[in-house]
Amino acid sequence: MADYEIFELGDYVLQCGKTLRKAKLAFKTFGTLNAAKDNAIVYPTWYSGQHTENEWLIEPGKALDPDKYFIIIPNMFGNGLSSSPSNTPAPWDGPRFPNVTAYDNVVAQHRLVTEHFGIETLVLVTGWSMGALQTYHWGALYPDMVPRILPFQGSAKCSRHNFVFLEGAKAALQADAAFAEGWYTSPPNKGLRAFGRVYAGWGLSQTFYRIEADLTHMGYASLEDFLVGFWEGLFYTRDANDLLAMLWTWQNGDIGANPVFKGDTKAALAAIRAKAILMPASTDLYFPPEDNRIEAESMPNAELRVIETWWGHFAGGPGTSPDDIATLDAALKELLAS
Amino acid sequence: MADYEIFELGDYVLQCGKTLRKAKLAFKTFGTLNAAKDNAIVYPTWYSGQHTENEWLIEPGKALDPDKYFIIIPNMFGNGLSSSPSNTPAPWDGPRFPNVTAYDNVVAQHRLVTEHFGIETLVLVTGWSMGALQTYHWGALYPDMVPRILPFQGSAKCSRHNFVFLEGAKAALQADAAFAEGWYTSPPNKGLRAFGRVYAGWGLSQTFYRIEADLTHMGYASLEDFLVGFWEGLFYTRDANDLLAMLWTWQNGDIGANPVFKGDTKAALAAIRAKAILMPASTDLYFPPEDNRIEAESMPNAELRVIETWWGHFAGGPGTSPDDIATLDAALKELLAS
Repeated sequence: MADYEIFELGDYVLQCGKTLRKAKLAFKTFGTLNAAKDNAIVYPTWYSGQHTENEWLIEPGKALDPDKYFIIIPNMFGNGLSSSPSNTPAPWDGPRFPNVTAYDNVVAQHRLVTEHFGIETLVLVTGWSMGALQTYHWGALYPDMVPRILPFQGSAKCSRHNFVFLEGAKAALQADAAFAEGWYTSPPNKGLRAFGRVYAGWGLSQTFYRIEADLTHMGYASLEDFLVGFWEGLFYTRDANDLLAMLWTWQNGDIGANPVFKGDTKAALAAIRAKAILMPASTDLYFPPEDNRIEAESMPNAELRVIETWWGHFAGGPGTSPDDIATLDAALKELLAS
Repeated sequence: MADYEIFELGDYVLQCGKTLRKAKLAFKTFGTLNAAKDNAIVYPTWYSGQHTENEWLIEPGKALDPDKYFIIIPNMFGNGLSSSPSNTPAPWDGPRFPNVTAYDNVVAQHRLVTEHFGIETLVLVTGWSMGALQTYHWGALYPDMVPRILPFQGSAKCSRHNFVFLEGAKAALQADAAFAEGWYTSPPNKGLRAFGRVYAGWGLSQTFYRIEADLTHMGYASLEDFLVGFWEGLFYTRDANDLLAMLWTWQNGDIGANPVFKGDTKAALAAIRAKAILMPASTDLYFPPEDNRIEAESMPNAELRVIETWWGHFAGGPGTSPDDIATLDAALKELLAS
């Protein structure tokens, strides 16, 4: 039995001009929406992740406390649960799945929040990585609804370097002849595993590997054990076209690139009135703190708070670094109390 | 007509126990060996590079001045000029080419220097990237011959993170079915180009891409123009098995992993009596300064001198960053004067 619900978006016209017919937004909630409908938090998913992979921050006593808040996790389009290449009927299936932007995601999520739940104001939006990208969008597109945001290890616009890292991972996946330009009938295993291996160097820091945290902190028996067990394991079960659909969303992520801000990224950042704490990780190789520092300059109410860590991109990520997650949780509590 | 010479090594037994039959060491020299034979510099090549791609530092008036010094550039095994998968006769050709270590390279280079040229002492050994790996080996294996070393943007041992980055590039190349486990009859173009795309994110820094140095400093018209023109261009003409042979040499690079030091990397570093300046680049993503700082602790006569730059690994590299090359050249002059 599925542990999530589906919000039917109907025929959903995307920024690219194509229609996602019978579009579906999969979501899961935690806690109870109060009578005033003013205790809701939106917590979008990260690249390739699904709602179950967002749960490491949700727990009674933690900032995202289901005893106090109504926490909504909307699944990103392309992640295999919301409308995706792998679950959309022909002729819009597989490599014909249309390009979806972060804007498309967040407008759909807004419909879920307002039409389905009747919520008019949120307490907080927060997210990791591509979840952070969506978090920024919420702040810019719905400033009246969003008083607080905490994007962590992510950015409001995909940097050129981040774009290049993703080009490498994409090229590795597509080099596999079994990928067949997306028309595979069985998974392109070699390409999916190469994708994971390319990712392995980016996801964690030089220091992580130097101190052998894969062995001492994550319990793997050798580097190769980690590369197969963790990195190939993270991606080989995902659908290749799903991965590429979300990768397109990521590479084209830009808070300004939508009908509201017409390409003006700085104006979009300036529109975020929410009290914001931006939490990059000091050693993140694709979301370096400098990118958030530059963003904060355009935001009226943002604080840059760098997590000093050797965990790289995985600092506040899914449950791997207890110290960094404690730092993040404390910042979330501080923000929620303000 | 070839612009280089060949030193015949005969049947050269490698560390792995296989024999490189009729092994060839391709080299090029600049300047004139003086009568005392005491003005020679050894300057090994970098990953995938050939001697012509080492020339950016050699010029009258520069530190590597052919009017003063006799500069020897030995080509690394696997680079297509010295013995390599692509130029070795069957049955040792292609994917059957034996594994060659940095130790194997430097012992062969030592034979060239002593047997062919009759040189008993060198002025300096220097090199970039994998050239730096060989530079460290020269210092440790022949301390009586080597009074000065300047390894730049490289290390004495391949770090685990560096190993992982290379695993990603390798997996991308090998994901191409046309690679055929090394038995390709025409180049695996998709894999070679994916290899270049994976490399693109690593070779330069986040800041390089943020400030669009690909456009403003390197003259490309767009990011895609740079990815194809520079990065795919750097690798698609190389032989895939050659690339993988050198990649093995790199991944297994360890100054201590040879019959002399029997696995004791610190002892090998301690054996380097040469006055050494280690010059990492502040933003190098796979040879971060920290790795050199740790090495310097074990070296009796080493100074760590970080080049502050946004050029990443390409700081002192082949001719792209005039400022950093000037910094490097000044350090080489200082070292040569000492």
